[in-house]
Amino acid sequence: MARRLKGASSADTRSAILDLIRSSGRVSRIELSEKSGLTEATISKIVRTLIDGGLVVEAGYAESTGGKRPVLLELNAASRYALGVSLDYARISLVLCDINGTVLHSHAIPGARRSKPQAVIDRVAREIGRFLTAHAVVRGDVIGIGVSGAGRLDASGGVLRSSRQTGEWEEFAIEDALGEATGLPVILENDANCAALGEFWSGRVSTAHDFATIYMATGIGCGLVVNGDVYRGASSNAGEIGHVCLDVDGPPCFCGSRGCLEVLATPAAVVRNARERRALWDRLGLREREGEDVRTSFSTIAAAAMSGDSDAAALIRRSADLLAVAVLGLTNIFDLDRIYLAGPGFAIAGPIYLEVVRDVLDRLAFMRKVHPVAVEMGETGPGAAARGAASVVLHSHLTPHHLRG
Amino acid sequence: MARRLKGASSADTRSAILDLIRSSGRVSRIELSEKSGLTEATISKIVRTLIDGGLVVEAGYAESTGGKRPVLLELNAASRYALGVSLDYARISLVLCDINGTVLHSHAIPGARRSKPQAVIDRVAREIGRFLTAHAVVRGDVIGIGVSGAGRLDASGGVLRSSRQTGEWEEFAIEDALGEATGLPVILENDANCAALGEFWSGRVSTAHDFATIYMATGIGCGLVVNGDVYRGASSNAGEIGHVCLDVDGPPCFCGSRGCLEVLATPAAVVRNARERRALWDRLGLREREGEDVRTSFSTIAAAAMSGDSDAAALIRRSADLLAVAVLGLTNIFDLDRIYLAGPGFAIAGPIYLEVVRDVLDRLAFMRKVHPVAVEMGETGPGAAARGAASVVLHSHLTPHHLRG
Repeated sequence: MARRLKGASSADTRSAILDLIRSSGRVSRIELSEKSGLTEATISKIVRTLIDGGLVVEAGYAESTGGKRPVLLELNAASRYALGVSLDYARISLVLCDINGTVLHSHAIPGARRSKPQAVIDRVAREIGRFLTAHAVVRGDVIGIGVSGAGRLDASGGVLRSSRQTGEWEEFAIEDALGEATGLPVILENDANCAALGEFWSGRVSTAHDFATIYMATGIGCGLVVNGDVYRGASSNAGEIGHVCLDVDGPPCFCGSRGCLEVLATPAAVVRNARERRALWDRLGLREREGEDVRTSFSTIAAAAMSGDSDAAALIRRSADLLAVAVLGLTNIFDLDRIYLAGPGFAIAGPIYLEVVRDVLDRLAFMRKVHPVAVEMGETGPGAAARGAASVVLHSHLTPHHLRG
Repeated sequence: MARRLKGASSADTRSAILDLIRSSGRVSRIELSEKSGLTEATISKIVRTLIDGGLVVEAGYAESTGGKRPVLLELNAASRYALGVSLDYARISLVLCDINGTVLHSHAIPGARRSKPQAVIDRVAREIGRFLTAHAVVRGDVIGIGVSGAGRLDASGGVLRSSRQTGEWEEFAIEDALGEATGLPVILENDANCAALGEFWSGRVSTAHDFATIYMATGIGCGLVVNGDVYRGASSNAGEIGHVCLDVDGPPCFCGSRGCLEVLATPAAVVRNARERRALWDRLGLREREGEDVRTSFSTIAAAAMSGDSDAAALIRRSADLLAVAVLGLTNIFDLDRIYLAGPGFAIAGPIYLEVVRDVLDRLAFMRKVHPVAVEMGETGPGAAARGAASVVLHSHLTPHHLRG
């Protein structure tokens, strides 16, 4: 850490000190100097600008270690805000976080559905305006808006949704459009990367630790945190675990390949499989509808599995088995020792997935004789992606990493 | 690059400047200042110590851009050496490189076979002594020895060979033993990572470019270069593509899982499959022997495939198809845009593998609409791993990266 701090430009150094204060809770200038490798004089200068800017406040004294009791510093959490938006087909979530990453308010509105992208963005912008007004937040105190989207990103700030139904989004520059409509900086990130940064900002993971977050909503994605930042790859699309092949001769996937995790094990796949089991389908009262259904139907199947319906449990367990094999490959390739399962797909049957993934990694991870692999539940609420999107803003603003290169 | 240089300690800065001189060929002090972000005064000071140490020499003048013609610097390539050793079951290769990574001399001795680890190390140490004497290299001019080994590494410098036949290596600290026997610094790296760093040092890849090297010998591994260094993961074992599952219901693998690339597509698997095709086996004159055979038999099959034997071609093509699917998953997960195929397994039938992998990535890479994925042949000679191991020494010594954390 110290080496990176010393090498950073002054704006980066300021962000990094701010992040050290955040992650420390309360901290003295001397401790900041020890942790950062910067001289006390440099620390004092930076802290002065942070206090003047209202981002940091003095908050009491530490125990004396001989001389004067050192003044403690802490983040002025309510001084600035980050907005997170998850742009989902079925529901759009908004969250407002303070600069600790704590959710202050959240709100949900109907999803993007089949509306034109510009119409959706205009609606979101209006909703953001109302949301800020309702909570008496001054627009100038909002650092920026993080947007979580499912699908492939391109470098211009659009989302290539890779989906069969939303082709119009493919050429649409979300960052530009929402930035223009709100007057705020916007950063777009895929939902799995948002969830991973959300874990990172939850305070449960140390900066030094690499980890993967498996994000399951309708599909399954993966966010990889390496050296304290999301690993992005050549075009910001790393982590595409949904199109890892588990059966070379398996059923065709929309991506052109066969036997992908996407087509075998996602909530969408579980619902498809349930449809072929007519007794189960009717017993659970599942129906054919558009839009929200996949998640609703999957929730119904997951709940039945958790309460002992053996047909439902078999479907969920098969999905968990296949996910576990994909996670095993990911673990072997990255030599991971920490994995989170996050997103609404794990909200109900999370315990089944957790048990299966843990069991497979304990038994089969190639490095099992060298080190164990910890698997934990991450955030699974409906606002997980939106909260993660707000974390992307904080991460971009408060730490010396650069999003997108 | 500039940011990392500024932040590095003085020893790191010196290494980084040395690496800039190496990668530039010939370069002036002013250009070094521009490329590194360091002041000309700092550059002059560092260059002075490099010239005094005999690592860099002045070599003529650049064109004038108005004032005095600037003096050009270049690496004094023959001032220091790196040794590379590949510790193979069938054959042990030694190479001596100058500090440009150019191979000056190479030598092969019989492999480790079933000898005790200490006996193998003692034999290698004696051979290194003779090798240096024969080429009139003073031991003090050797920076260190890079050792390439197949299998899992542990943090103590041992190799957990993960194989069924060489359990004694599992607890054996190779770095310590060879260091003691030779009096030289030793660094151990798995063969795929060696091959990847060998590509990096070949000068064909820019420092800024992430890439993967698929290394095929008897098995298949993968070295991942991220931000100019090997990505190591939690225990230096990242890149284990051999145990990515391609068929959840496939044949059992020794790792405990099923349908791994290892059991379906490696040269060892191809030879096993050939054994079941008696006509082919007899026609190619393949025999059951120990040790070297897998590679020899695989070479025979590969050669037959290249010269039009349709049964042999079918086996190689199936192996290539499966490898391509594993590489597709790797590409999707890392969002890669550059891949090398290296190692002796590609020496003969490389063109078939190259064609199949390219075709699969062109058609199916999840990011194909965003960017292409370049697939190229890397080094496939028998000394590829040993040369890569020497690169590991150079990389550790000349660039500001720290191996193992």
